[in-house]
Amino acid sequence: MNHNSAFRIEHDLLGDAQVPHTAYYGIQTQRAKENFNITGVAISHFPQLVNALAMVKMAAAKANLEVGVLSQHHHDAIVAACQEIIEGQWHDQFIVDLIQGGAGTSTNMNANEVIANRGLEILGYAKGNYAQLHPNNHVNLAQSTNDAYPTAVRLAVIFASQPLIDAITDLVEALQRKGDEFDDVLKMGRTQMQDAVPMTLGQEFRAFAHTLAEDIDRLREAAKLLAEVNLGGTAIGTGINAHPDYADAAIRHLTDIAKVEMKSASDKVEATVDMGAFVLYSGILRRIAVKLSKICNDLRLLSSGPRCGFNEINLPAMQPGSSIMPGKVNPVIPEAVNQTAFQVIGNDLAVTMAAEAGQLQLNAMEPLITYNLLNSTKMLSDAMAMLTTRCVVGITANKDHCQQLVNNSLALATLLNPYIGYENTTRLAKTALQTGQGIVELVLEEGLLTQEQLDRLLDPEVMLKPSIAQLG
Amino acid sequence: MNHNSAFRIEHDLLGDAQVPHTAYYGIQTQRAKENFNITGVAISHFPQLVNALAMVKMAAAKANLEVGVLSQHHHDAIVAACQEIIEGQWHDQFIVDLIQGGAGTSTNMNANEVIANRGLEILGYAKGNYAQLHPNNHVNLAQSTNDAYPTAVRLAVIFASQPLIDAITDLVEALQRKGDEFDDVLKMGRTQMQDAVPMTLGQEFRAFAHTLAEDIDRLREAAKLLAEVNLGGTAIGTGINAHPDYADAAIRHLTDIAKVEMKSASDKVEATVDMGAFVLYSGILRRIAVKLSKICNDLRLLSSGPRCGFNEINLPAMQPGSSIMPGKVNPVIPEAVNQTAFQVIGNDLAVTMAAEAGQLQLNAMEPLITYNLLNSTKMLSDAMAMLTTRCVVGITANKDHCQQLVNNSLALATLLNPYIGYENTTRLAKTALQTGQGIVELVLEEGLLTQEQLDRLLDPEVMLKPSIAQLG
Amino acid sequence: MNHNSAFRIEHDLLGDAQVPHTAYYGIQTQRAKENFNITGVAISHFPQLVNALAMVKMAAAKANLEVGVLSQHHHDAIVAACQEIIEGQWHDQFIVDLIQGGAGTSTNMNANEVIANRGLEILGYAKGNYAQLHPNNHVNLAQSTNDAYPTAVRLAVIFASQPLIDAITDLVEALQRKGDEFDDVLKMGRTQMQDAVPMTLGQEFRAFAHTLAEDIDRLREAAKLLAEVNLGGTAIGTGINAHPDYADAAIRHLTDIAKVEMKSASDKVEATVDMGAFVLYSGILRRIAVKLSKICNDLRLLSSGPRCGFNEINLPAMQPGSSIMPGKVNPVIPEAVNQTAFQVIGNDLAVTMAAEAGQLQLNAMEPLITYNLLNSTKMLSDAMAMLTTRCVVGITANKDHCQQLVNNSLALATLLNPYIGYENTTRLAKTALQTGQGIVELVLEEGLLTQEQLDRLLDPEVMLKPSIAQLG
Amino acid sequence: MNHNSAFRIEHDLLGDAQVPHTAYYGIQTQRAKENFNITGVAISHFPQLVNALAMVKMAAAKANLEVGVLSQHHHDAIVAACQEIIEGQWHDQFIVDLIQGGAGTSTNMNANEVIANRGLEILGYAKGNYAQLHPNNHVNLAQSTNDAYPTAVRLAVIFASQPLIDAITDLVEALQRKGDEFDDVLKMGRTQMQDAVPMTLGQEFRAFAHTLAEDIDRLREAAKLLAEVNLGGTAIGTGINAHPDYADAAIRHLTDIAKVEMKSASDKVEATVDMGAFVLYSGILRRIAVKLSKICNDLRLLSSGPRCGFNEINLPAMQPGSSIMPGKVNPVIPEAVNQTAFQVIGNDLAVTMAAEAGQLQLNAMEPLITYNLLNSTKMLSDAMAMLTTRCVVGITANKDHCQQLVNNSLALATLLNPYIGYENTTRLAKTALQTGQGIVELVLEEGLLTQEQLDRLLDPEVMLKPSIAQLG
Repeated sequence: MNHNSAFRIEHDLLGDAQVPHTAYYGIQTQRAKENFNITGVAISHFPQLVNALAMVKMAAAKANLEVGVLSQHHHDAIVAACQEIIEGQWHDQFIVDLIQGGAGTSTNMNANEVIANRGLEILGYAKGNYAQLHPNNHVNLAQSTNDAYPTAVRLAVIFASQPLIDAITDLVEALQRKGDEFDDVLKMGRTQMQDAVPMTLGQEFRAFAHTLAEDIDRLREAAKLLAEVNLGGTAIGTGINAHPDYADAAIRHLTDIAKVEMKSASDKVEATVDMGAFVLYSGILRRIAVKLSKICNDLRLLSSGPRCGFNEINLPAMQPGSSIMPGKVNPVIPEAVNQTAFQVIGNDLAVTMAAEAGQLQLNAMEPLITYNLLNSTKMLSDAMAMLTTRCVVGITANKDHCQQLVNNSLALATLLNPYIGYENTTRLAKTALQTGQGIVELVLEEGLLTQEQLDRLLDPEVMLKPSIAQLG
Repeated sequence: MNHNSAFRIEHDLLGDAQVPHTAYYGIQTQRAKENFNITGVAISHFPQLVNALAMVKMAAAKANLEVGVLSQHHHDAIVAACQEIIEGQWHDQFIVDLIQGGAGTSTNMNANEVIANRGLEILGYAKGNYAQLHPNNHVNLAQSTNDAYPTAVRLAVIFASQPLIDAITDLVEALQRKGDEFDDVLKMGRTQMQDAVPMTLGQEFRAFAHTLAEDIDRLREAAKLLAEVNLGGTAIGTGINAHPDYADAAIRHLTDIAKVEMKSASDKVEATVDMGAFVLYSGILRRIAVKLSKICNDLRLLSSGPRCGFNEINLPAMQPGSSIMPGKVNPVIPEAVNQTAFQVIGNDLAVTMAAEAGQLQLNAMEPLITYNLLNSTKMLSDAMAMLTTRCVVGITANKDHCQQLVNNSLALATLLNPYIGYENTTRLAKTALQTGQGIVELVLEEGLLTQEQLDRLLDPEVMLKPSIAQLG
Repeated sequence: MNHNSAFRIEHDLLGDAQVPHTAYYGIQTQRAKENFNITGVAISHFPQLVNALAMVKMAAAKANLEVGVLSQHHHDAIVAACQEIIEGQWHDQFIVDLIQGGAGTSTNMNANEVIANRGLEILGYAKGNYAQLHPNNHVNLAQSTNDAYPTAVRLAVIFASQPLIDAITDLVEALQRKGDEFDDVLKMGRTQMQDAVPMTLGQEFRAFAHTLAEDIDRLREAAKLLAEVNLGGTAIGTGINAHPDYADAAIRHLTDIAKVEMKSASDKVEATVDMGAFVLYSGILRRIAVKLSKICNDLRLLSSGPRCGFNEINLPAMQPGSSIMPGKVNPVIPEAVNQTAFQVIGNDLAVTMAAEAGQLQLNAMEPLITYNLLNSTKMLSDAMAMLTTRCVVGITANKDHCQQLVNNSLALATLLNPYIGYENTTRLAKTALQTGQGIVELVLEEGLLTQEQLDRLLDPEVMLKPSIAQLG
Repeated sequence: MNHNSAFRIEHDLLGDAQVPHTAYYGIQTQRAKENFNITGVAISHFPQLVNALAMVKMAAAKANLEVGVLSQHHHDAIVAACQEIIEGQWHDQFIVDLIQGGAGTSTNMNANEVIANRGLEILGYAKGNYAQLHPNNHVNLAQSTNDAYPTAVRLAVIFASQPLIDAITDLVEALQRKGDEFDDVLKMGRTQMQDAVPMTLGQEFRAFAHTLAEDIDRLREAAKLLAEVNLGGTAIGTGINAHPDYADAAIRHLTDIAKVEMKSASDKVEATVDMGAFVLYSGILRRIAVKLSKICNDLRLLSSGPRCGFNEINLPAMQPGSSIMPGKVNPVIPEAVNQTAFQVIGNDLAVTMAAEAGQLQLNAMEPLITYNLLNSTKMLSDAMAMLTTRCVVGITANKDHCQQLVNNSLALATLLNPYIGYENTTRLAKTALQTGQGIVELVLEEGLLTQEQLDRLLDPEVMLKPSIAQLG
């Protein structure tokens, strides 16, 4: 190695290659960087993944020390390097593209090499002097990509789910507050796009809040499944090359370091190839996307107009709506959320196909799964934060217009059902629609109910709650 | 074989098995029937497939006679049996479930056995007396499942596309007629659910017609790609066991019999495993589904109400809409079309995954592709016929309401743009929205245009066509 | 009504229509039957759904009696009719196509009409004499399609999940038994299709068992979410037209009747439109499909050959494999399972799109969701039963061939890693590959380890378990 | 505007905002930048889109000059600014995130603002002095986002398809060359993972080439459909605010500028909302992905081993395969292509859902469609270039091993079929499999054919081509 040049020479199975002298990564990372350039998104784009890799490597070093196969000296260097990474240093050295062949080997080697080279510096050696601290023999000791990488990925997804839960929580609270604010806005409920029966706008917004809140529990349940890892299984789950006590120790240390309760998978051969927990987690992201899209569709429907639509609510104007139509304001934020939701659903399909493509003892497509889980989690988090702050908190109601629509509607027909029967009310509704008359008018005309009885029926207490048989 | 019993005994690689004495199918069909029972949908559910199989077998027999490897005697029996099937007989003997392992072998053998047994009867022999006419040695001569089956499937899909084209044509015509009928209904055009600029309801319905009409051409183009077949390629496309002149002769005969111009694939090894034409055709079905769904979404939006929605059009009432809300009429036909569209899109994904799962010289998942292409084609045809006859032809317009919405709108702002500038009109639109005033009123108030100039702008000739600079 | 004719005349919002005199269904079912004919699959195809509908109607009648809005007389007739349905009668009267517009109204009215007409007979009246027992006023009392239908669907899916769990259990047990049987079959583990390190065939099959077993828990968790219902919410979840005590009573009775612990949704406005539990359940079906497909891919890989493939296991021959290649036996059962899996994944997409298409207070696409959940559940159950009985139980191992492959492999290199280092072993592996020599030979040649040390390493106890540092 | 500060103040419908003084974009771009931050991928990531926007704006200016609504002065400034962009300048000013609400309004305004500000500079004015050259009144004259944006997007996709066609062409040629190189490698063809009949490795690779080559035509056909644009339709396709002669002139100028034959859509109302051409194009990308994934699956299968797999070919080693298994080389390039294919298929679903979500006169989700089409096109191009240069060109064949597998196989059975019948050969194949004997041996033993006859059958001329009846 020539310390004067801009490069050092490293060696691997395929021969020699130049690595930038300043680089903490090594030859295998270098090769992977040249091989893969599909997404342009590097590992470092997801700090949770970089941190999780460092935590797994630190836990492995601690376990290997404990079971007696790693020297204190090597252990200390590895742990110190990992600690620096966890504290946010050297993330820019994680350069491999997230879509990569090799089932994550390049990501794992990127971590091994950065840790080895930084460890070498800490020990006072030059980068690349692997005889003193080796990426494979020491940093990757008792590990394979096939257990270290998925363990790190699972931990990274657990980490990434927390900001997502926070974003859901904020959105739920904003919707809930709007629900309370709109509690006195009486409006028409609609089923199948047709006028149905009255409700309040508050009920509508609280339902939005309620449906999203449920997914916080789903994410937490999924995190539990993700916390079952195959660390210690090494190449195919049989644990070849690992000390018998290593797996338990490594998982115990990882739990301490990550502050997440990790568990050892009971069948590590199965756990090494199984993508089930990822498919499930992706399915929950998809579920959130489906719900968000439905809510945004509703917000766009309810704010349609201003003169020729439903016009029940106003979304805050975030930007001029049109390059040609002056004064037009569009529901740009919900539209962007809809699109995010579609992308997440598309990404979920990519995850599904990747999971199905596992073969024999490994799933080589795990990097794609990793990319999509982290990307979709981030996109959903960002989209929900945008929806909360740039839309929901500023929504206002057109209360009078809502009330007027109810008054003008035929919804009373349903209320009459228990008192004058389905067939009578059907006939009245049909007449009202044809003549343009109101239902109340027709009921009085035919003497079916008195004004007093009608007043009792039209009380929101009756209209908005289970209330049959309070009339007569 | 015991002619007195209800069963005859047949024999294959796996040993003996009983086949119902009355059955024209044989032991291999029998085994497949027992093996596969996933969809409950038999080959006979799609008469186009049964007919296409018979046509391929007839073409093969004719070609084998021509090249001198099949006797006139056997040829005549096979051709006669095939002719009966093409005329609609024996379809009930095609009993295998459409989802089947074996890459279509069971379907191919079902055809071979029915034709052999019916041929035996025609020749005066008992069913099962395969020494006289053999399902494999004679009916399947110079064929493999791997060329005969995909050729038949491609032909079946071409056949099935014709009723689909008819259904599109009918729907397009119905929409076109409504377009003409609604040509004088001035209404508000909407972009992003917000009031935009005026148009006619006729323009809207003609756009529905136009967008669907395009897919007739796409289907015809796809049919051309489907007509390139690997017949003569036998097991893996190399043509093993077929006479050198067989392939061309068989495809020539098939063209005559099917009255569809079939072509020989230039690389039969490729053609044997390639599912590309199916993926493309499925993509066109998906495209039709996407368009239909969008149209049905619009019909449901435009008919929303009757009092609290857009209420621009009325869909014909096909059934009472609610078990609890008297008088409610729902857009049930468009809703059923939406659901059909979603199913077609789901089926298209199944086709995609099946196509991706091909391995080496064959795609073993072709039966699933066949099932979904035929099923989606049929579902779309039926759904469009339903939409035409039970919905579109009965749609009426609420012309006065549409006009009133235009009058009440702020759409004039856009028209003013070229005359008083984007910033002036933006300011006016904003004021109008806040004060509830009309744009015309404000323009006159500010003296920006005269009443006469405004009248000219509000002329539908100006509003509905490219027309800048005609004002001053 | 003319008792002498083959038809009776019934009346609804749209006017009169003829209903077959023998039919227990009525005019609304009749109209729906005419309107919808997309799948050809009637409600009766899924007995669980018919039963669940009858249970909901029975529970409603009991609750309405309890809260005092339904007479004992009407109650008794409804309950008796429902009981007959639950016992398996009248299922053929549930004739509406599963893909239907109207958000399930036709299915709900089909149930209401059959129960009313059968109830009328029990009471001694003629079918159609609705003045005595009315489909809407009595059978549907305090209900809307929008609460009764989804409650029944959820219950039906819970019912349908039980045979699915049974099918998984049987398959898991069969795989587990094979795992035990193959415990002494030493074979090469493979990652990324490349030879990795040794394992046993027993470990491989037990991993198959383990991965599927996990989904039993997932299905049970999903069933709990499905058991939260909006019964009592009526049209949009506000409970309009229901007695205040009705909801709790109805759910209590439903729990008794169905023997499934049902819960009242805490926000019935949300619960009326939310499809989240269905999306989650569908996601679990998809997860099972992904796992099954991966397992079947492996079975097909491991049995590839017989002479030119992996040839580690033999699948039982279920039918001759080829119409042209004598003696060929194909993996037809796994292939059919693969295809089923792809269809389930496609159906899951249809569910996702349908769920996303909910609008405002209802999801009109729920019938498509219902169809796909019940269909996919049934298909998976049937496919797994097929896989168990027609494939897994008959699998045999080619033990000698498996052992020979291990002996011939370079896998020992990995075992040497901890003793002679990653770089030394890499060099040896490369040489072995180039020269065709064995690793053992090279190690001895170079004097890196003694024969005794090598013997200890090659002990399966070392190769198949975590075991580092036992050497020296 | 304060020229001394780092910011200038601009004004729009929503009020004032600061824009960096150096920025060529303006207030609306600024707002969009703040509103949308979902993907982190800016318009400038796709130079084809930036160029296409500039070309559309240039064509519009030329057309507006021609029809007399734009001054020569304004025209010259706009054209000069657009020309600079087309030549590669100012791309960094296109900063809006590709997932954006507003149906592309922000992208359109980003272009309008950059062009106006650069035009102002060219005219000698300060940036922001819109009284002299206005983003809306001049640059966007006679345009709406709703026609200018989709026209630019369609053009950008056409541009992007060219490098994709180049990448396919290169890959096809590389595969073709390998096909020629491997023409004398006799190997076993396999169907359903089971040994079938012989072929050459050359045939296999030429089939790979052939299948991909077909998509070049498909892409060209799709480009033709994309070239039909709604330019001149303005807001909703009616052409409001455009001169009657503008549309034809603009499309003529665009054809000249872009050197792509553009056509005016015959129904611009339809064309404004229709996403059909995008769905079709995305379907072709998906088709390419499906084919690529199948090819890569095959490459991984054929190179499986080295000792325990098919081992027919060797992929070039691009990086060490394992962090634990020394000497292991994995098929990392095909694996990365598989993953790219899955992502493209997922993106295609996002496109489908976005296309389905169009409402009334516009599809607000077009930005997501744009993002995915451009992204998938780029990913596929890059993945194919990677596959060509880092894998295919370096593939070598294990000729002797391939020949040995054929010799050892039972494939001869099929060849005997026409001479000794399906049942005889089935029996022989079964015996061979059970006893381990060869077919030739058994045939001679039973005296079914002479050695001479067998020799003729085993001639590759007979095995690899249609050749029945040449035996005698």
